[in-house]
Amino acid sequence: MSSEIKKNLKRRFTTNRIETLVDGIFAISMTLLVLNLQVPQIPSPVTNIAIIQYLFSLIPKFYVYGLSFILLAVFWRINHQEFHRIKKSDNTLIWINVVWLMFVAMVPFSTSLVGEYGEFQSAELFFHFNMFFIGIIAFLNWHYAVNHNLSSIKWSKKSYNQSRNIYLGLPFLSILAMGLTFISPSWSSMAYLGIYLFKKLGKTEKNRVMNSNRF
Amino acid sequence: MSSEIKKNLKRRFTTNRIETLVDGIFAISMTLLVLNLQVPQIPSPVTNIAIIQYLFSLIPKFYVYGLSFILLAVFWRINHQEFHRIKKSDNTLIWINVVWLMFVAMVPFSTSLVGEYGEFQSAELFFHFNMFFIGIIAFLNWHYAVNHNLSSIKWSKKSYNQSRNIYLGLPFLSILAMGLTFISPSWSSMAYLGIYLFKKLGKTEKNRVMNSNRF
Amino acid sequence: MSSEIKKNLKRRFTTNRIETLVDGIFAISMTLLVLNLQVPQIPSPVTNIAIIQYLFSLIPKFYVYGLSFILLAVFWRINHQEFHRIKKSDNTLIWINVVWLMFVAMVPFSTSLVGEYGEFQSAELFFHFNMFFIGIIAFLNWHYAVNHNLSSIKWSKKSYNQSRNIYLGLPFLSILAMGLTFISPSWSSMAYLGIYLFKKLGKTEKNRVMNSNRF
Amino acid sequence: MSSEIKKNLKRRFTTNRIETLVDGIFAISMTLLVLNLQVPQIPSPVTNIAIIQYLFSLIPKFYVYGLSFILLAVFWRINHQEFHRIKKSDNTLIWINVVWLMFVAMVPFSTSLVGEYGEFQSAELFFHFNMFFIGIIAFLNWHYAVNHNLSSIKWSKKSYNQSRNIYLGLPFLSILAMGLTFISPSWSSMAYLGIYLFKKLGKTEKNRVMNSNRF
Repeated sequence: MSSEIKKNLKRRFTTNRIETLVDGIFAISMTLLVLNLQVPQIPSPVTNIAIIQYLFSLIPKFYVYGLSFILLAVFWRINHQEFHRIKKSDNTLIWINVVWLMFVAMVPFSTSLVGEYGEFQSAELFFHFNMFFIGIIAFLNWHYAVNHNLSSIKWSKKSYNQSRNIYLGLPFLSILAMGLTFISPSWSSMAYLGIYLFKKLGKTEKNRVMNSNRF
Repeated sequence: MSSEIKKNLKRRFTTNRIETLVDGIFAISMTLLVLNLQVPQIPSPVTNIAIIQYLFSLIPKFYVYGLSFILLAVFWRINHQEFHRIKKSDNTLIWINVVWLMFVAMVPFSTSLVGEYGEFQSAELFFHFNMFFIGIIAFLNWHYAVNHNLSSIKWSKKSYNQSRNIYLGLPFLSILAMGLTFISPSWSSMAYLGIYLFKKLGKTEKNRVMNSNRF
Repeated sequence: MSSEIKKNLKRRFTTNRIETLVDGIFAISMTLLVLNLQVPQIPSPVTNIAIIQYLFSLIPKFYVYGLSFILLAVFWRINHQEFHRIKKSDNTLIWINVVWLMFVAMVPFSTSLVGEYGEFQSAELFFHFNMFFIGIIAFLNWHYAVNHNLSSIKWSKKSYNQSRNIYLGLPFLSILAMGLTFISPSWSSMAYLGIYLFKKLGKTEKNRVMNSNRF
Repeated sequence: MSSEIKKNLKRRFTTNRIETLVDGIFAISMTLLVLNLQVPQIPSPVTNIAIIQYLFSLIPKFYVYGLSFILLAVFWRINHQEFHRIKKSDNTLIWINVVWLMFVAMVPFSTSLVGEYGEFQSAELFFHFNMFFIGIIAFLNWHYAVNHNLSSIKWSKKSYNQSRNIYLGLPFLSILAMGLTFISPSWSSMAYLGIYLFKKLGKTEKNRVMNSNRF
């Protein structure tokens, strides 16, 4: 019995340092987004009106700040759930994660780019490509773990398909957003609102928590 | 017996990664506050007098640095206590936390704003609104956890009311501070000294530690 | 037996989130020191000679980078050892830690100040005051924990005195450094080399590890 | 039996805070690399072409961003594996780690230097020296742990030699890169592609995981 506990402790060990790196890089990237919001040297005479005007001019930056923060949280959340179910990691899985984190850590830059030049298609495309790579690598990560026997739960055909759809949903929204830049760059990121249509995300997840309580 | 331990380990698992994200974002936001303090290019000839004058001119920035650091620590502390008593998290709780963290990560910006333009009402109002949102979302977080059966302790009417008052105390102080900006923007943040009147915070907490020792 | 384990797990819980905050703020402060080293816009034509000259001109900054990094590591190390022996924390202990962290997070600023103006007494005094406060608050932290029954080991008169001397040694070196600024600001921080004289630090520590293995 | 578990818990304790510092500094350094990518003030009129041209001009910076991110991940990975096998730490081991982290935290600076002046030998040499020190100190760390009985596994002559070769491989690649700067500074970092030749890294590691499952 206690040997099981020991195994439990050890198994947790096996993935908890990659989790620490993931959590660290997400927390830092999410917080660095704020560096995008800068307090300017307002030319004298400074007035309340000037400060308010400045704050209003920041609205596009607040918008991309919120958007990137939420999107990173979505990706963190998905990874979070996945690692609950990963039995062990191997070399390949760790390197998929590292490349993934490389794109995650780039988000403050692409956020800053659309914060400054959001009305230009090129800037928005760069942002959507960044999100696309994060999404598709998260999918590969999951796909690899499931198909290489690293996951701790048995996947029914149905739950496998549901999960795959969630993982492919995010890069799909990025492609949709890329398409929308041809109509209106500034509004293209509205495509990500599609996340709220992923009602199934919530539901599947509840089932999963129940599953994982069982294991 | 050991199955209880295993459950214990698992339960901890359930919330410990959101805790990691919370701790990470708090630690980073608190440390990024220092970026608000910048070493200037003092025009030649540099003298000790010039450096001392510069350091004195930084006093308002040191003040907001200390204030924001302490306020973030207060919020972190409250969250810290709460998660001790949270049995499990669900989707909604995690998203309340994410939105909360979005406002937490914005504190270095609003601190920088009042550090630069603290004598203007608009800048101070922005800061107090930021703190108000952090306070009110922390309250919602607690309220949701307690009313959705996610908390691990039973709440007597009395301890429920005490906790609610503490949670509502902080946004109340923000509103008070907003009011004070109409009298004196620079001194409005003195309202937060009201935290020290929360004697009950300390006392309730001790009771809680005892409670949680029991569970 | 397993109830003891459960207690063990819970006790660890009690201090491990303040540890996370401490570790986070130390890691971030130590890493932010690097922002002090900036790559300049070397005026054209850029040559290898110009880059090498620039890197040589950075030597004072590399020096304070190394110094602050090591000093922060020393403080982190001392705190690290202490929390091994802390049974539980209370409100006061947490707030001592928060104020302490406020001075820790300020180190990138004071490092940047001496990196830029290290030949001026005022800048060096600011740095030494910063270190003095970190040292003296670390002492208060230890003093409070020991005298309020929060420490997990019994302190013999001898080990108590040894520890006190170590804790008081660091602020003493800061005072010494402040004195040295009257002779030579640039060399005043040499006072911190006195840390290497704390041979007892190493020895006491080994005994402590053995003690803590026993508990 | 449960006393073994308690010992297990305690042992983990012994090294898990240095791991936290290591993970924190790696995560922050890796994320700070992004600060190297800055959004410019493109002179009006801003056009899509101007943005795309700017992004193309960033290619050398993207390249060093990716390179440094991967190299830091390699070092983190090696350290990660090592601490799995470290029974306990002592003073010397911690200080080797601190000096090591000092060079790790300097990577965003040297990355920024080659991002800006990568076509100059002096800048590239600085970068390769930085990597060399990280590599050689990682080797010393391992060497010290193995030879001072701090490692939890028995090293056969063969596995000892394999590990030593891996640890010495990275500083060797840095020296190779330094040599290549005499031919072409810009391409010198190609030497690090040699990592992919470390096929043995993967294989040895798998054996080790099996070993560590046994302990």
